[in-house]
Amino acid sequence: MNEDRLTGRGLVVLRLNHRNGRDDRITTHVCLVGRAFGADGAVITDSDATTQASTLRKVNAQWGGRFWVEGSVRATTVISKWKSKRGIVVNLSMYGESLQDTVSEISYRYRIMERGLLIVVGSSKVPGYIYKMSDYNVAVTHEPHSEIAALAVFLEKITKPLLSTRRENAELKVFPRLCNKGRVGVYEKEVQ
Amino acid sequence: MNEDRLTGRGLVVLRLNHRNGRDDRITTHVCLVGRAFGADGAVITDSDATTQASTLRKVNAQWGGRFWVEGSVRATTVISKWKSKRGIVVNLSMYGESLQDTVSEISYRYRIMERGLLIVVGSSKVPGYIYKMSDYNVAVTHEPHSEIAALAVFLEKITKPLLSTRRENAELKVFPRLCNKGRVGVYEKEVQ
Repeated sequence: MNEDRLTGRGLVVLRLNHRNGRDDRITTHVCLVGRAFGADGAVITDSDATTQASTLRKVNAQWGGRFWVEGSVRATTVISKWKSKRGIVVNLSMYGESLQDTVSEISYRYRIMERGLLIVVGSSKVPGYIYKMSDYNVAVTHEPHSEIAALAVFLEKITKPLLSTRRENAELKVFPRLCNKGRVGVYEKEVQ
Repeated sequence: MNEDRLTGRGLVVLRLNHRNGRDDRITTHVCLVGRAFGADGAVITDSDATTQASTLRKVNAQWGGRFWVEGSVRATTVISKWKSKRGIVVNLSMYGESLQDTVSEISYRYRIMERGLLIVVGSSKVPGYIYKMSDYNVAVTHEPHSEIAALAVFLEKITKPLLSTRRENAELKVFPRLCNKGRVGVYEKEVQ
């Protein structure tokens, strides 16, 4: 990967333990959520990330933004580099402290102190050193569910994407429309 | 499926267009998110739902709750039955009205008026009649991302699962613990 991406600023997702084939769709969803909820890019360890990089390039072309995807790098390299730039590392895990208890502190450091967040999402087994290297281990509920869901709920609290409007350089935008018969889901896409 | 589940009360997830094999993991994540974020059960169309039902039974056994999974039923049957019981149908789609604009009305009808919500999540192509049969078409951002993420963010607003504590009949519970050296992710599971 191009390690210049690891600036310690902004929001970057680190996807651990990707297994080619088996995890392709899950990891693609992780990247799409990263993009839709306001992150700058994603790093996928244990993969060259070709599939996801290509999908996200297509999505950027239509829907805007500059979300990047990189692979072929070790998790420890990414985390060390991020921390060396004074970035903060947040590991999302059901075994962490609750999001409710940590979100305002993390949000303050991100928004006011302008410290970047590297948000780590794993699959089933996350090695112990990831917990130790992270500044925060944060649980989005203490129940087993989905790294995609955890990332979405965490980012939603940090970036408020529900309030956002059209992105720069987007070709398409959704115009939701209320219609006769109550709220029928008629919609338009409009080319700029 | 056992249609007596469709009471028009509580929260039920309806997963559309499941493709056996290809969608197995995504649909399992949908069910796990439904459970972790407080829904009562999930209906999977176009599948007998055996895989998901078995996974969720195991998760219930360890982590508590009574989340159920049913399959072998048509979407229109589920929606019609739900509406006949005065339940409300919410279709999550990037082409809908924004969550920000709809959540308080839906939340009011669910919490105060005690109308149940059937939350519909599709895969890529959701047929037009689903939009027409739904009471609300709700967009969790107007960007393409993930039905798992959309469901999680929607339910998080409705059920506030981040505030919840141990479930009845759970065998395991996470005890997050702050440790020396800042917030190191040491944790315990404890058997009751």
